[in-house]
Amino acid sequence: MLTETLLSPEDLADALRAIGAERYHIHHPFHRLLHAGGLTRGQVQAWALNRYYYQATIPVKDATLLARLPTAELRREWRRRLVDHDGDAPNTGGVARWLKLAEGVGLDRDYVQSGTGILPATRFAVDAYVAFVRDRTVLEAVASSLTELFSPKIIAERVSGMLANYDWITEGTLAYFTPRLTQAPQDSDFALAYVQRHARTAAEQQAVLAALRFKCDVLWAQLDALEHAYVTPATPPPGAFIPA
Amino acid sequence: MLTETLLSPEDLADALRAIGAERYHIHHPFHRLLHAGGLTRGQVQAWALNRYYYQATIPVKDATLLARLPTAELRREWRRRLVDHDGDAPNTGGVARWLKLAEGVGLDRDYVQSGTGILPATRFAVDAYVAFVRDRTVLEAVASSLTELFSPKIIAERVSGMLANYDWITEGTLAYFTPRLTQAPQDSDFALAYVQRHARTAAEQQAVLAALRFKCDVLWAQLDALEHAYVTPATPPPGAFIPA
Repeated sequence: MLTETLLSPEDLADALRAIGAERYHIHHPFHRLLHAGGLTRGQVQAWALNRYYYQATIPVKDATLLARLPTAELRREWRRRLVDHDGDAPNTGGVARWLKLAEGVGLDRDYVQSGTGILPATRFAVDAYVAFVRDRTVLEAVASSLTELFSPKIIAERVSGMLANYDWITEGTLAYFTPRLTQAPQDSDFALAYVQRHARTAAEQQAVLAALRFKCDVLWAQLDALEHAYVTPATPPPGAFIPA
Repeated sequence: MLTETLLSPEDLADALRAIGAERYHIHHPFHRLLHAGGLTRGQVQAWALNRYYYQATIPVKDATLLARLPTAELRREWRRRLVDHDGDAPNTGGVARWLKLAEGVGLDRDYVQSGTGILPATRFAVDAYVAFVRDRTVLEAVASSLTELFSPKIIAERVSGMLANYDWITEGTLAYFTPRLTQAPQDSDFALAYVQRHARTAAEQQAVLAALRFKCDVLWAQLDALEHAYVTPATPPPGAFIPA
């Protein structure tokens, strides 16, 4: 992938998939513990609490990019993501569904929404994603969304594994994930076609690949921080959520 | 410290010191391992490599704040920090001295300067510090530097402990720290007097305290990431430095 020659659209897609195969957080030990039933309820709460900050920031990230897109066509496409996450009415959309997931695993709604108790490392990683989308080229910003190429598989593992392995988790609690199985491929089909078409030089293609590596880092760092604080060595930083 | 009443200047200073007593990274297990001789050379290299990114970003942070200060008097005071870190000639100043430290523990100078191999969590935390200084009030930005109130003690522990406990570390390697023992108190005396004078409402005082907590989080998160990647469970994220 260090080639400086121009890749064909198909080879660019292959190079993006190769990054996922190495760096997507489906390979992180915390994910494996989560879906295999290896976590306590408190550890799952810590995951849901911290991941809420990521979920709640996704529409901020998408609005940040939306504001930079030059055409109505592109903005309409990206606006769909805002609808998916923010919904069309109170208590609809992906963020609201994640809040239900957090409540379903036993967390207080107001506490989750307050952001109190999340790991500073979660905030730093998620905020870095928004900054990336604000400060880099539109091409890199679109490319950073391409982890959605890999999300149907991790969602399938998570949902089937969590339902099978935790008797206190119900299908209703995991309702967040169902629409994502159709939304994510729609989003990533568009984003992949966009980067294939707009990365016209080898340098632009390398920037696209680097953007996806960056985004994998953002996701991986969140699970590293959760694993460190709540699994091994299980030392939450000062002020962070302590499971009951 | 949750009082909403206006604190006296002395009580504000006490409240700041209480935050350090709880949250400063002198209390982090990785720091204790470092100065007690509990790390391998590779683990010390990982620390020096990642900490270089923090050190090299400090003048960027100070320049970001300098650009927001309204008077020549304040800018002259803050400009001194740039001189301390960037020096007056090539190979002088704190950043260059940290590079010598990194070389002294066996790292390649160009590799360290490239930033390749640092933990993404290091980058996210350090960049969050620059963003804080850019986006918050000048009062909060100044307050976030107040971890220097606590740095002479951690430096003394580090230098004496590392010299005593690692036979491959010399006084020359640790030359970074000597000037800091006089620079840091000069800096923090100014910053403390500034926040005592300019935090005129209870809300502003609370913002000052929150800024110091934020900065402690930035430092703590860096040691959490190092401990996770290189000590326990010792699983570096994809692409990060692997000790020889």
